[in-house]
Order: sequence, then structure tokens, then C-alpha cells
Amino acid sequence: MNSELSSLQVQDIGEQGLLERLQRFCPPEIVGDDAAVLSTEPGQSLVVTTDVLVDGVHFSELTTSGEDAGWRAVAANLSDIAAMGATPLGITVGLGLPGEVAVSWVEQLYQGMTQCLQRYNTPIVGGDIVRSPTTTIAISAFGQVNPSRVIRRNQAKVGDAIVVTGVHGGSAAGLQLLLHPDFGENLSDGDSVREACALHSALLLSADRTVLIHAHQRPKPRLDVLPILWEILDSHTPHSVAGMDSSDGLADAVMQICRASGVGAVIERTQIPLPKQFNSWLTQEQALEYALYGGEDFELVLCLPKEQAYTFVQQLGEGAAIVGKITDGSTVLLHDQTKEYPDQVLSLDRGFQHFHR
Amino acid sequence: MNSELSSLQVQDIGEQGLLERLQRFCPPEIVGDDAAVLSTEPGQSLVVTTDVLVDGVHFSELTTSGEDAGWRAVAANLSDIAAMGATPLGITVGLGLPGEVAVSWVEQLYQGMTQCLQRYNTPIVGGDIVRSPTTTIAISAFGQVNPSRVIRRNQAKVGDAIVVTGVHGGSAAGLQLLLHPDFGENLSDGDSVREACALHSALLLSADRTVLIHAHQRPKPRLDVLPILWEILDSHTPHSVAGMDSSDGLADAVMQICRASGVGAVIERTQIPLPKQFNSWLTQEQALEYALYGGEDFELVLCLPKEQAYTFVQQLGEGAAIVGKITDGSTVLLHDQTKEYPDQVLSLDRGFQHFHR
Repeated sequence: MNSELSSLQVQDIGEQGLLERLQRFCPPEIVGDDAAVLSTEPGQSLVVTTDVLVDGVHFSELTTSGEDAGWRAVAANLSDIAAMGATPLGITVGLGLPGEVAVSWVEQLYQGMTQCLQRYNTPIVGGDIVRSPTTTIAISAFGQVNPSRVIRRNQAKVGDAIVVTGVHGGSAAGLQLLLHPDFGENLSDGDSVREACALHSALLLSADRTVLIHAHQRPKPRLDVLPILWEILDSHTPHSVAGMDSSDGLADAVMQICRASGVGAVIERTQIPLPKQFNSWLTQEQALEYALYGGEDFELVLCLPKEQAYTFVQQLGEGAAIVGKITDGSTVLLHDQTKEYPDQVLSLDRGFQHFHR
Repeated sequence: MNSELSSLQVQDIGEQGLLERLQRFCPPEIVGDDAAVLSTEPGQSLVVTTDVLVDGVHFSELTTSGEDAGWRAVAANLSDIAAMGATPLGITVGLGLPGEVAVSWVEQLYQGMTQCLQRYNTPIVGGDIVRSPTTTIAISAFGQVNPSRVIRRNQAKVGDAIVVTGVHGGSAAGLQLLLHPDFGENLSDGDSVREACALHSALLLSADRTVLIHAHQRPKPRLDVLPILWEILDSHTPHSVAGMDSSDGLADAVMQICRASGVGAVIERTQIPLPKQFNSWLTQEQALEYALYGGEDFELVLCLPKEQAYTFVQQLGEGAAIVGKITDGSTVLLHDQTKEYPDQVLSLDRGFQHFHR
């Protein structure tokens, strides 16, 4: 891209000019009316979800490439669709943009969104672009689901195994590596924070660093696990599946499911799957912290009868694991079968909360 | 509301506290999962649309009550659903809020949204609340439509009558009255702008002022006209209907339809239905300006065969009118059958554009 193009601002071409440039990311037959029309399959229910992302809160226009911001925004919404057991049909994109935003950043945003969407054959079917002092991305995603296969939080049963579809903590660790580029480099001065970081991060190989950053920048919604899940469940007695995604961390997911279902849970410390890049880098405590509370891994946390859970985890392969079980009561316990750590009660207070001063 | 309650800010109660307060506006069976599940009728297509509204651009948190902002935001989205010939199923609401926003304003926003939604039996089925430096309201609306009844912009045919479902210009005039409270009051000082305004507005009765302000604050999406339309069309040879809503003004709607359909149009100046409150207040020129370019009246502009158009307008009653016809070519002409004014070619340049400096 030449410098003239990259310095072009939204206010130079106006709403209409920007819309014309962005329409190439949308199917032509869908654009141009007051609303988009989508076909759904007979007998399916509609699933809808929405997310708002704000510059300076959820991403930084200065430090996040448009492509990464776009991919992540779409991944978060498709993950919600996957967490309901549904197949995506399309998304709408509402953008609030200051006039000074580079047109190239907005185009890259759409590039990143469509890169992620194409993996799941999902079109952008509509949107709105408005002036705003704050860059804001509002995405709504639509999907369809067989009503008998809806995954809900309130259906966990005592005795269910708790399954995660992949490793946890990688996204949060990747974000730390992005925020502190010195992490894992050779010690370059006597600054004590850097020194402390370097103690661990010096052991992080450049390839491992890339893997973790990628986990943060390009999370993959687990729509791929649903056909495997249905195949296993359809060959057994019907059993409703409880679950949600781990967008706010593994601990939050387990606690939300337990609260909605009126049950408790025991999580086995040693069973929580961690990125193998953590091994030579983080202490056990640090690794667990990232895995439980880091968030944005966008894996699914599902509650299934033990036997099906076992088959499911085997078929998913690396990263997937049974991390615990649903119990009577309302307590979520972190348990250590090696007895090195005492039992610990988890609580929602650790979750990410907006607005608090 | 006592002053302690009304001074409570969003940052005092956090995202979770605000969510708990707002959940009473949503059906309980729908809230609590990663996404909402909605039933659709067999054989219907899905219609989706989205709008973003920004404080200081589309409304002012300081001068617009939460109720009015909420009503208008919902009305705009339901109008898009109506413009496709569809029936609404639900909306999602994404909110970006600075911590200092009054909780009472946000509750009033939801109050206004549900007041409008209840007229059309439409629930709020999901949402997202995030911190933002700028109050932002992102609404997506979903509806369903019989695929053979989808109203599109690109289906206007030469010879079609152009129908509007109600008067135009009231909303824009109401906004002017809100922005300039002196409009229509007795002259209170020698300021020449005020004097000029007062020349006309002194003749505006207080009741008339209220009607116009109400047209701006509480526009009604014309979902009500669809059953009447289908009844008339079903008794005739099938004919696809072209149309859209007049959210960006009557002139914009006609020009968008003509551009999409590859046709032209003639609009009869004297046939454009105006609020009767304009009569003693505005010149013919001013009234036409509001009607053509004011926008936000949220009426439907439909292109139908003459005979059906006539029946349709008769059944809708006051305000509805045939304002012109679709012609060969690509020009949209404003014509005066009284010959007082020469023909005038309308162009899209007058439309509202964001971003331009």
C-alpha cells in the first residue's frame, strides 16, 4: 500500500465512499435494502447474539491491527453461536468511527473479519457506519439450531463430567507478551520488573512466543466440535448438554453453569489443559492463574455423562480434557489430587467487571 | 424518583449491577445463555438489520430523555423490518456507556425501548453492556417474512404508482422546535434570527407544536400497513412490491428505489402529504424542504400498480397518498401540476452524509 492510500482518512471519503469500499466484503445479493433476508432450514430455531467492542477498552486502534481486531470480534460472536450448539448464518457489523480513522485500518478490519468468517462459510449480511468520537465495533451474529440440540447453561446434572475442548490460558499469556514486548527477551537493563519478567521469559523460545500471541490474536471458535458431539450423543440415549464458552475464563464458565443449573463442581487442578509453551516458562501457580481467569480462549466448556465425555475428548484429541465433575450443592472447588495444594473455593468475584472505579 | 436514586451512576453499580436492573425488561426465559434462541415459523425467511446511534451525533444524552432515545432507536430498526415486508421477532441491544452516565437514564432508555416494542409484541432478546467514553446504542432487529412478500428496492416498474403511507416533514420540524424553543413563542427580543423565526412560528399553536415534537420523539414504524397491503395484493394478480422506508427523507427514498430499479420517477409537488400543522406556519417552500429532505418520518414509500395503490391509499386513510409514478429513464423529477414552479431534478447530493468535514 502506498503512503497516499494509507493516509486516507474516513472523513476524506465520507460514509458513502467507505460503504462502497466495504461492500466488496459482503455478498452482492444481500446488500442494498433496509435489511438483509436470509434463508433458514425448516425446523430450526434462530440463535442471536451481540457484542460491542470499544477502542481503548477491548482493543487499541493504535496497537491492534485492523485485521486482528476484526478476526477477534468475529471469533467472539461465532463462539457464542457455537456455545449454543448452533451453526452460523451471518453477522451484521455496526461501526462508529471518528473521521480521522485511516480508511486502510477499516479495510483491514473487514479483511480480518472475513478471514475468520470464511473458515465457517458465514457472510457479512448488513451493517451501519456512523460518525463517533470513539471507534466502536458492534457485531450481531445469527445462527440456526435444531431445537433438541440447544446447549444451555442450566442443564448440568450431578455426576456429569466437565469437558473443555482445548487448552486454556494461551490467549491471556499472548496478550501479556504483546503488552510487554521485553517478556522473554534477554535482560537489557537493570530494571527490576524487567528482571523479574526475564527470569521466566528468557526461557520462552521465539516460536513459543509466536504461538501464544497467535492464540490471542487469532482465537478459533469451536464450531468444529459440534458435529463430533452430536454424532456421539445421537448414538446414546438422548441427554441434554449443558455448556457455554470460556470467553471470560474457565473458572467463570464453570461457575456460571453451576449457578444456572443449581449444582456445584469439583475441578482437578492437574487436569486443566495448558499450552505446552507454558512448561519451561511459567510457574504452576502462574499457569493456573492464566488458565482459570485469563479468558478469551473461546473454547467450549460442556457437561456430559462420563462415558460420552470420555469418547468426545478422545475424538477431539490434543488439548481436550475432562477437567472435573458436577456435584451436589453450590460450591465450585479447585481440588489437587496430588495433595500438594489444599482445596480452594472459586468465586465469581475474580471475573472481569466493567465500570468499577 | 428521589435524588439519591437519580444521581446513581453506572460506575457505582458496575456492569453486573446494571445488567440485573435491565433484565426486567427482557423475557426471563431468553436471558442467561451465550445467545438467545427464537422460534421462527416454517417457510419464513429471516430478516436482519442493525443501527448504531451515538451521543452527540444521533441524540444528545443531555437534551434527549432516555425514553425518547430508546423509543426512536427501536422505531428506526422496526421501520427497517417493516420496509422489508417482515414481522419483527426480537431485538438485541448493545450499549457502550461512560461510567458517569446516570443509571436512571439507562433505565429510561430501556423503558422507552420496551414502550415502542410492546406495541409490536417484540421482545429484547439479548445484549451487551460495555464501558466506552461515548454513549453508544447499537440495535439489531430480527424479523421473519414470507419469501414471496419481501419488499425490495430494486423491483419498481415503469407505470407503478408511488405511494407514501403518511405525512412527511413532521419529524424534522419537530426537531427544529426542540432545538429552538423560541420557535413559535412571542417575540421576546430584537435578535434578527429570532425575529425571522417568529414571523412564522408565532402562528404555531401550542397543541400543533406538541404534535410535531411528538412526531419527532415518538415515530411509529408502519408495521400496521402490511396486513392491509397483503390483503389487497393477494386478491389481484401477484405483483412484487418495491419500497423502502423514508428514514432519510422522501426524496432519498424515491431516488434509492429508482437507482436500484434502473428507472426514473415523477413526484407531484402538490400531492406530497404534509402535517396539517404546517399550514398556518411554514411557506410552501419550507414545508416541501422538510418533507423531501427532513427524514425520520419512518413512513413507507411503496411502488404498486395504480389500481392497487388507489385501494391501498383509500384504506389507509388520512396522510397516505399517491405522490407520483415510476417512469422510463433515470431522472427523478419534482413536477408542479399547477405550473407555479418549473420542473426540478432531484439528486442524492442533498442526502445526509456522515463524516464530511
